[in-house]
Amino acid sequence: MNKPLRVGIAGLGTVGRGVVKILQQNGALIAARAGRSIEITGISARSRGTDRGVDMSGYRWYDNPVDMALADDVDVIVELIGGSDGVAKALAETALAHGKSLVTANKALIAHHGMALAAVAEEKGLTIRLDAAVAGGIPIIKAISDGLAANRCESVFGILNGTCNYILTQMERSGRAFGDVLDEAQRLGYAEADPSFDVDGIDTAHKLSILAAVSFGTALDFDSIAIEGIRKISPVDIRYAEELGYRIKLLGIARMTADGLDQRVQPCMVKKSNPLAAVNDVFNAVVVHGDFVEKTVYEGRGAGEGPTASAVVADLVDVARGNRTPVFSVPVAALTKAPAAARDALRASFYLHLRVVDEPGVIASITEILSTEQISIDSLLQRGSEEASGASEGGIDVILTTHETEEGAVRKAVLKIMGLTSLVEQPTVLRMVKN
Amino acid sequence: MNKPLRVGIAGLGTVGRGVVKILQQNGALIAARAGRSIEITGISARSRGTDRGVDMSGYRWYDNPVDMALADDVDVIVELIGGSDGVAKALAETALAHGKSLVTANKALIAHHGMALAAVAEEKGLTIRLDAAVAGGIPIIKAISDGLAANRCESVFGILNGTCNYILTQMERSGRAFGDVLDEAQRLGYAEADPSFDVDGIDTAHKLSILAAVSFGTALDFDSIAIEGIRKISPVDIRYAEELGYRIKLLGIARMTADGLDQRVQPCMVKKSNPLAAVNDVFNAVVVHGDFVEKTVYEGRGAGEGPTASAVVADLVDVARGNRTPVFSVPVAALTKAPAAARDALRASFYLHLRVVDEPGVIASITEILSTEQISIDSLLQRGSEEASGASEGGIDVILTTHETEEGAVRKAVLKIMGLTSLVEQPTVLRMVKN
Repeated sequence: MNKPLRVGIAGLGTVGRGVVKILQQNGALIAARAGRSIEITGISARSRGTDRGVDMSGYRWYDNPVDMALADDVDVIVELIGGSDGVAKALAETALAHGKSLVTANKALIAHHGMALAAVAEEKGLTIRLDAAVAGGIPIIKAISDGLAANRCESVFGILNGTCNYILTQMERSGRAFGDVLDEAQRLGYAEADPSFDVDGIDTAHKLSILAAVSFGTALDFDSIAIEGIRKISPVDIRYAEELGYRIKLLGIARMTADGLDQRVQPCMVKKSNPLAAVNDVFNAVVVHGDFVEKTVYEGRGAGEGPTASAVVADLVDVARGNRTPVFSVPVAALTKAPAAARDALRASFYLHLRVVDEPGVIASITEILSTEQISIDSLLQRGSEEASGASEGGIDVILTTHETEEGAVRKAVLKIMGLTSLVEQPTVLRMVKN
Repeated sequence: MNKPLRVGIAGLGTVGRGVVKILQQNGALIAARAGRSIEITGISARSRGTDRGVDMSGYRWYDNPVDMALADDVDVIVELIGGSDGVAKALAETALAHGKSLVTANKALIAHHGMALAAVAEEKGLTIRLDAAVAGGIPIIKAISDGLAANRCESVFGILNGTCNYILTQMERSGRAFGDVLDEAQRLGYAEADPSFDVDGIDTAHKLSILAAVSFGTALDFDSIAIEGIRKISPVDIRYAEELGYRIKLLGIARMTADGLDQRVQPCMVKKSNPLAAVNDVFNAVVVHGDFVEKTVYEGRGAGEGPTASAVVADLVDVARGNRTPVFSVPVAALTKAPAAARDALRASFYLHLRVVDEPGVIASITEILSTEQISIDSLLQRGSEEASGASEGGIDVILTTHETEEGAVRKAVLKIMGLTSLVEQPTVLRMVKN
């Protein structure tokens, strides 16, 4: 057998501990698969004293992870520190500069600095493996860059944030409001004390930018992503979704269109017959459409000790085997700079929830605005307040779904509707996703 | 860029034509991903004259595919001839003997001769890639052997035959009988003139044996698979499944148990909340449980020109990149010989459909037999013939579901029940799959 691959792990939180457990527990099996053993030689974390429930006495401790990137007995650095800059970035850069490949679960680092890092890795004959950065245990980066390598990718979208999916699932099951469920999720440890990275869609956007680069062979373009989170989703919308045969999910959606790359993070109404509608709790799922393979779907746990560590160790096996898939499926120099598609050009069906004063002519004025914008209505539902809205004050709910139309037209119509004096609340507009 | 990978394609049916189309249409993209271009140099098929709708004039024609395996300008052979022996086997052996790697979609060949072929490939520093042999466009072999390489696999199961899934889906939608739907599927080209490989479960078993070897690192063991097809599934069972919240699917199921490897192909009642229940028509799906990643699910088209050719070309990209994943995830010498688990030891819930004469004491005698075998009943439903059975003659339907119990006990009980004079038809016994 070949000589071992020597690993330095930086960051010993949930995922880091999982990586240590896997390498200890499945070491022999992994060595048989990788063609060589994978051995931890160095570790580093914020606090040395913490009891992490696994024996780490055989590994050399580094107070500063960057020092580990300089060690002679480390071949590859596993970066599990997190954050787009600071120590994580310094560690990644130092590792590559000193001839060590990098395995990372850090989507923020990759979304912001992935191309510069990959360029250095390529130049030095090293690699960066980042499957753990997207969709936890689902091997989605490998599926796209190896499994679907024959295809021109048309779209990639999915549920990429377990916290949001957990909150939406709980809201659906219990009928409770976003804030209530978020509080509970924080108490249970499913949401961070500062939840904004998750619930405002930033984390999903980091992952989406990576998925898009790998799928389309385009340069990472985090800044062009239109990002919307789930704070404004109300129990009423969830109930109407159910009634219409849909579920509300936070999706990251990237599509290659004739005028460029369209990347969005937004809560969507997903038709129940779509496999994503059945993905609940902390599970993630990704749908990839390729020109020859057509639709493929991947589902699994999007976070947690075992699943994310599973992806990290699979990436170590890749490095150990010397596999040569480029970081973003093609070499950095071959990544194209796709223009960002105009947001308004998107064609989709939309759900509109308008809360209006119950007075004559309201529906007529709304439908007239839609008609002026050439928006054709698929279904219209009007509900009294007691029946549908619970705690919300006064007014009636008007629920509209449209036939496929341009987002720009919907945006214009909604602006006009917001000028109507009969409107009681900010309207809710959600994209509908059928297939 | 490195020198091209030169490909000889044997077999120009649906999949072969698809491979040519992909390499022509996405050639530049694939070259960027693979780090070198992939060029067809030779082709071979039964008939040269057939119009295949793609220009193949630039490729050298071989009347005998085995000659192509001897050519100096061919680096890798794509074997799409099919069949476990004969020309396909001769071609594979010749290719490896002459220093050419092999990409194949031939599950029968691999199920029966895969280990011998892989041993030769390893010895010569070549490889065999076979992702197209299992589940069409779903990159399931790569997902398991690369993406889940950190895990000890606990079970792998799924819908692996598009023809059977199409027939069962049509039976469910139309209420028609197996024979009717099969006739139609044959007219539409979804089923072969001789459908037995598909509907009797052999094709699923070939694929399952490969999945099991890759997942568990065990020697291929096709002969130990208990195989049952879908011919005996009746519209009545499909209706009762619906009523109980299940769908009937032909599953290949492999589990590593304390007493050995349990491999089966059998029609099962799959709970609607299980993602496999929503996989319809010609789609395939595979569920893999690993000790750290827990449950992951993979879904896509299980057959057809584009999807299967997508898998073949992804395997060519693997070869072009020089990736080094062992054929069955570990070297042939490391594959263990797991004993076959005793069939009767399986613990599961079961569905029993008994058609009996409508006379006093029948139910009592059935429940007494079950009780003697320590089988605890979860639900019991009794239905008159007009209501439930349509065309079927006389008697009433007794539908039982059991709590989790040993298959051996169920088998014994059913044998006793078959001795009852009140039984009108052969009972139907189906394993129930919940998660």
